[in-house]
Amino acid sequence: MTFPWPQLGAPLSDVITPMPVIDEARLANNLTRAQAYMEHHGLIFRPHIKTHKLASVARFQIDAGAVGLNCQKLTEAEAFADAGFDDILVTYNILGAERLSRLRALNDRLNLLTVCADSHTTISGYAGVFETGKRLHVMVECDTGGQRCGVQTPADAAELAALIDDVPGLIFRGLMTYPSPGGAAKVQDFLAETMALLSAQGIECPVRSTGGSPDLWSAHLVPAATEYRAGTYVYNDRAMLRAGECGPDDLAMNVLATVVSRPTPDRAVLDAGSKALTSDLLGFSEYGTIEGLPDARIIALSEEHAVVDLGPHAGDAPEVGQQVRIVPNHCCVVSNLFDRVVFHRDGIVTRVEPLLARGTVW
Amino acid sequence: MTFPWPQLGAPLSDVITPMPVIDEARLANNLTRAQAYMEHHGLIFRPHIKTHKLASVARFQIDAGAVGLNCQKLTEAEAFADAGFDDILVTYNILGAERLSRLRALNDRLNLLTVCADSHTTISGYAGVFETGKRLHVMVECDTGGQRCGVQTPADAAELAALIDDVPGLIFRGLMTYPSPGGAAKVQDFLAETMALLSAQGIECPVRSTGGSPDLWSAHLVPAATEYRAGTYVYNDRAMLRAGECGPDDLAMNVLATVVSRPTPDRAVLDAGSKALTSDLLGFSEYGTIEGLPDARIIALSEEHAVVDLGPHAGDAPEVGQQVRIVPNHCCVVSNLFDRVVFHRDGIVTRVEPLLARGTVW
Repeated sequence: MTFPWPQLGAPLSDVITPMPVIDEARLANNLTRAQAYMEHHGLIFRPHIKTHKLASVARFQIDAGAVGLNCQKLTEAEAFADAGFDDILVTYNILGAERLSRLRALNDRLNLLTVCADSHTTISGYAGVFETGKRLHVMVECDTGGQRCGVQTPADAAELAALIDDVPGLIFRGLMTYPSPGGAAKVQDFLAETMALLSAQGIECPVRSTGGSPDLWSAHLVPAATEYRAGTYVYNDRAMLRAGECGPDDLAMNVLATVVSRPTPDRAVLDAGSKALTSDLLGFSEYGTIEGLPDARIIALSEEHAVVDLGPHAGDAPEVGQQVRIVPNHCCVVSNLFDRVVFHRDGIVTRVEPLLARGTVW
Repeated sequence: MTFPWPQLGAPLSDVITPMPVIDEARLANNLTRAQAYMEHHGLIFRPHIKTHKLASVARFQIDAGAVGLNCQKLTEAEAFADAGFDDILVTYNILGAERLSRLRALNDRLNLLTVCADSHTTISGYAGVFETGKRLHVMVECDTGGQRCGVQTPADAAELAALIDDVPGLIFRGLMTYPSPGGAAKVQDFLAETMALLSAQGIECPVRSTGGSPDLWSAHLVPAATEYRAGTYVYNDRAMLRAGECGPDDLAMNVLATVVSRPTPDRAVLDAGSKALTSDLLGFSEYGTIEGLPDARIIALSEEHAVVDLGPHAGDAPEVGQQVRIVPNHCCVVSNLFDRVVFHRDGIVTRVEPLLARGTVW
């Protein structure tokens, strides 16, 4: 796949805006540091592709020592299987005849495919499709305080594990949770209690998987866990910076934008709106920060415009046509809006890469 | 372009979720009613393609009597030019050598291309590229209270109009504004005052274009305007319903989702997260409503999950695997997340259509 622009070797100022640009050195540093941390603490690392959706980044992660990939959607898993990855965990209940049929086909061509379940209905669906042929690995999803999916108690987790264990076509692989930030103690208690119940029943539970970039550097606080999953850490963003989980030099993604209007001395309008930055506020009252203009506030987005209150920068602020670099609130949803991202090293374009499984979210 | 699913003639229950689905009858009704209103009031109608990004809907709009299309990005204009449309207004300042070069190429192949300017810098860019060859039509963008782009006063508008009028390669076409909702009086005053200034200078101002779906049915309150632009009216959404601008039977877009988890009696989790619905709240405290469950509240989104507080529906709520229909807060940004949409008539799939200029927002 080739793109007419930017030319490799061009400066970022040649990049047409809005466009996410990735700093190769910062990305590599984020990837290797997280992998080293996990290895230091004896944890298996399974990065989540939701943030980057890029084959090259996934390949870097595996080459650095990650055991495999984490996907959230079957379409993501299919796309990364097509790209040559052969150990994929889909942290989702896969439901419905059409998807189950594709799940079976995917299982046949991967070295190791693992999915999740938190209900009898989900397990029953897997059991029906995997009556014959290669067996499917299934984890039980546990709600350890995240209040999203997952069984509510260790007893319920153990019951579903036993149910999976009883189905000839399924292999119970362990426990999976996506905790709320700062929830290490709850995760530890839930996993340990469930493991005790499973042990009493003679059911092996080889993998206990937890995750989340906000708690990545606290992963060692859950000794019952064997595996960690994270996505956002690859690029980091304004929310990660606020949480103290990264420093300013670890921000690997910027969204380049151009000043398209300066209607008043204190107002600038950029060509990156909600179709480039998303409306994710994550508790902030602005839609990102602008590098070099720390007191400028992106106060409103429409679809293709960002309205900036320049505040104290009004006097020396950017002119119409000037490019600015935005640090987005939430990097994962930004990637998803674009078909491709631009990589650079010290501001020089190194490559352009298409996203996988974008716009095919079912 | 063909898609493996859904089969034409299949029920919507066969559609893999999450997926935006469009009710053909409601869409047609929304399109024809708005066109009839504009004709009744002697206004030229120029629909904005940002909401649908679909060739078939644009064709319907033109066949119904719309004068041409409104795009926000050059890439959108290029895509709709490729699809055969030949009168396009891009309501944006087009800046930078690469884009100006593409603008010139686009101008050469369209019957009528019009762009906007609200600064000397923008006009200077147009003037440089259109020194020779086919002339470019330019409108002056006016800030009539929307506080986005646009010159701040009628005097400034008249000055830019005169500047455009003086450039041999440019044709001054008129005034453009995107007002804040309910701003008819301000729009009228700004346009009328600017027209008087232009008239005194002997500058013709053939088009005065205003817009916005929230004020579509008040378009006649600006007698100085000749043209109206709107996008959201094609589908409508929860925000339009709240504003009283449409009724429940005018909601042409649903996002189909599947219940993937029922972790507690009052919690359901759907497979439509911020990568399907966006985080646009538009003043609501929920991320959409669910048809048939009026008191259920979509209280949180993560990227691929919606968490629903079923409230009083906890007793008889949807089961795991069941499909639900969401009315999104903001339809325009939902389309943009998908590569295709599914059309139906009375719940039977009629066609699947790819979006134009998705993921290429520069």
